[in-house]
Amino acid sequence: MRMSDLIQKKRDGGVLDRREIRWMIEGYTAGTIPDYQMSAMCMAIFYQGMDIQETYELTMAMLDSGDRIDLSGISGVKADKHSTGGVGDKTSLLLCPMVACCGVKLAKLSGRGLGHTGGTIDKLESFPGFSTAIAEDAFIRQVNEVGFAIAGQTAQLCPADKKLYALRDVTATVASRPLIVSSILCKKLAAGADVIVLDVKTGSGAFMQREEDAFDLARTLTEVGRMAGRKVVAVVTDMDEPLGNAVGNALEVKEALAALRGEYRGDLLELCLTLGTQILREGGVASDDASAREMLERTISSGAALERFAAFVRAQGGDASAVYDPSLLPQAPVTAEAPAPAGGYVGRIHAEDVGLVSMHLGGGRAAKDDDIDLAVGVVLKKKVGDAVAAGESLGTVHARTEEAARRGADMLRACFEIVPEKVTRSPFIKGVVRGE
Amino acid sequence: MRMSDLIQKKRDGGVLDRREIRWMIEGYTAGTIPDYQMSAMCMAIFYQGMDIQETYELTMAMLDSGDRIDLSGISGVKADKHSTGGVGDKTSLLLCPMVACCGVKLAKLSGRGLGHTGGTIDKLESFPGFSTAIAEDAFIRQVNEVGFAIAGQTAQLCPADKKLYALRDVTATVASRPLIVSSILCKKLAAGADVIVLDVKTGSGAFMQREEDAFDLARTLTEVGRMAGRKVVAVVTDMDEPLGNAVGNALEVKEALAALRGEYRGDLLELCLTLGTQILREGGVASDDASAREMLERTISSGAALERFAAFVRAQGGDASAVYDPSLLPQAPVTAEAPAPAGGYVGRIHAEDVGLVSMHLGGGRAAKDDDIDLAVGVVLKKKVGDAVAAGESLGTVHARTEEAARRGADMLRACFEIVPEKVTRSPFIKGVVRGE
Repeated sequence: MRMSDLIQKKRDGGVLDRREIRWMIEGYTAGTIPDYQMSAMCMAIFYQGMDIQETYELTMAMLDSGDRIDLSGISGVKADKHSTGGVGDKTSLLLCPMVACCGVKLAKLSGRGLGHTGGTIDKLESFPGFSTAIAEDAFIRQVNEVGFAIAGQTAQLCPADKKLYALRDVTATVASRPLIVSSILCKKLAAGADVIVLDVKTGSGAFMQREEDAFDLARTLTEVGRMAGRKVVAVVTDMDEPLGNAVGNALEVKEALAALRGEYRGDLLELCLTLGTQILREGGVASDDASAREMLERTISSGAALERFAAFVRAQGGDASAVYDPSLLPQAPVTAEAPAPAGGYVGRIHAEDVGLVSMHLGGGRAAKDDDIDLAVGVVLKKKVGDAVAAGESLGTVHARTEEAARRGADMLRACFEIVPEKVTRSPFIKGVVRGE
Repeated sequence: MRMSDLIQKKRDGGVLDRREIRWMIEGYTAGTIPDYQMSAMCMAIFYQGMDIQETYELTMAMLDSGDRIDLSGISGVKADKHSTGGVGDKTSLLLCPMVACCGVKLAKLSGRGLGHTGGTIDKLESFPGFSTAIAEDAFIRQVNEVGFAIAGQTAQLCPADKKLYALRDVTATVASRPLIVSSILCKKLAAGADVIVLDVKTGSGAFMQREEDAFDLARTLTEVGRMAGRKVVAVVTDMDEPLGNAVGNALEVKEALAALRGEYRGDLLELCLTLGTQILREGGVASDDASAREMLERTISSGAALERFAAFVRAQGGDASAVYDPSLLPQAPVTAEAPAPAGGYVGRIHAEDVGLVSMHLGGGRAAKDDDIDLAVGVVLKKKVGDAVAAGESLGTVHARTEEAARRGADMLRACFEIVPEKVTRSPFIKGVVRGE
């Protein structure tokens, strides 16, 4: 088999078979197929696409390029969640304890990653002593006892995907549905859960800007997931503005804790209820949406979810007193408000730009080894549709220095579009897609 | 400027400007833009194409990546010829002396190359002592005195093209019109001639199998050539069978000598007359096709072209006695005939497969440092349209061993399609394209 022949086949609209796809991914992982052939193949796939069988084979080949997590030691249904990425997304912090209280286990692997804020691991390190470096047996034990655990990834999951994603990132081949689907799913399959819920973002701040494309992606994700023998559901959600109000590591933890205390109702909670509902239904714990939702709501009103979160922090070595007293979490020395330049209604908040404010303040990473400031970030006071008076604060910037705060506040102001007419928000949850 | 942004621009159908194209080619030549980005760009160009201005800028950027040959020391009009490649193509050996006798100079650079036979340089080394390693001043002097010279390439012409072609070859991105045009033209522009004639092959054995594609390529070549200030003409010719009858190094030299002696009339001579006519007209030596053709025919009937060829061999250190006595050229020890399996008419001769026979016999190179056998090869006795009786020889195989000869004869037989009905050959010269 020659890689140039496979490129040509795909280039001319051909369908790659299982043998060809496995040979290609194995060779690429082993380094016998060079980057320059793989990038040409990715571009050919960008134009010609892949059918569902090819996408499945690609996913499975990438899965088989590395280790799998063995969750057989965990009793009951194991669930996992993935989001296509959003500014202010602290869903896991809220969803895990809620779902665990309802009897579905979550054995989550998480990363630090690059981006506007740190990853879930960075956020959790806001609790003094908290560690995600857990041995596999301790991880399994904790999931059985506490209901969930969040560990840093140590196993070599899907090295093919790691290598391929880095290549796609610099060759303008990220935006290809089969490549996106295989990249997301291979890692979720390797992580071992039976039930997988996917949050597919759409809107101006998301990767899939058009709702139609997001639904196409959701359908392919669930279909390929089912072909791989897992229960996969995708929820398409709006990302025309940041999720929740906080963007920044400790600030997001505080927002999640407020939600667990029942002091927050908004898009973040709505998303967790929707994703949780799908997990409980697919996990066989609830038979319909209404009862699932009620179970999840009760974990908050009863205080059970907050207790469960504290138990989780303790189990991973963290000081849980901050769960009940968030003022113990990292706090930035300087704050500044971003006043509205004019009165009216919030028409739009550019989520990507809010992320850049967090980056500017030091809350994110541009390179792998960058230091990250857990305390800094932004808390929005207005969301899309809210009325605002001239000079009223649109949000608060939490910064390390006066200068960073001033500049951050200016940047934050520029993220808002204020319009004179009342704004009708489009529904936040666009739809739920189940594979058959 | 970021290469990934340029890839995305082209991927989405955008037009690259002069600055972007030059930055890209300079970076690629210098190694700051890696192969894996360039191959993705080539694939995007494959699908999205390039307009005439982009193609021109790409050509000029590749031209400027290396040296140019300075032909200002040569008096009169300087012409050059290029062929998109064909099995049995020994055109230069015939065309150069014919045109030189009519007063147009040819300062040709040639290579050894990979392929079914050696390059023009290898073929010429059939003459004992012949050398293409000529210093630049001797090269210029010889063109002024003899009318033409054929030298090995020592200057660094278009290093960008060299690197890019090697990359395209292994990433299924050869078959892209703007990439083909820029690759051909940048080298011809660097070689310095005023008049450039291009032989664009079409048909089953050619790169551009469809006549329509060949004419499109011819039009773009001439148009971009004119934009670069040269007189460029393209001749579209048939390659449904090998050119002439001989395929193999010394065998092709013998065929060219026979043609120079006036003992051959066929597609090879027809091609040289057509290409030569364009050179004489563009060079201002003849005012119409008929008079140009007559001038060229006369160089053969008068014996002037043969004399000129001998002078050329002598000037480059070769023993010219073989020009008058071809039996002095390398000769294979074994020959075998390939008998027709059935009677009828020759419907087709698969040119590529005839090339493979030559490769099998040792007449070509698969890798750069392979040895080449100048004596071996094939001489066709039948061409498309010829009547043939069962058992009659289709061609002679010239080999080093009995075994190679037997296998070669079997392979040669399989190159022929014999049909029961009389075959009408389509015209060999499909058309002439002049840029305006």
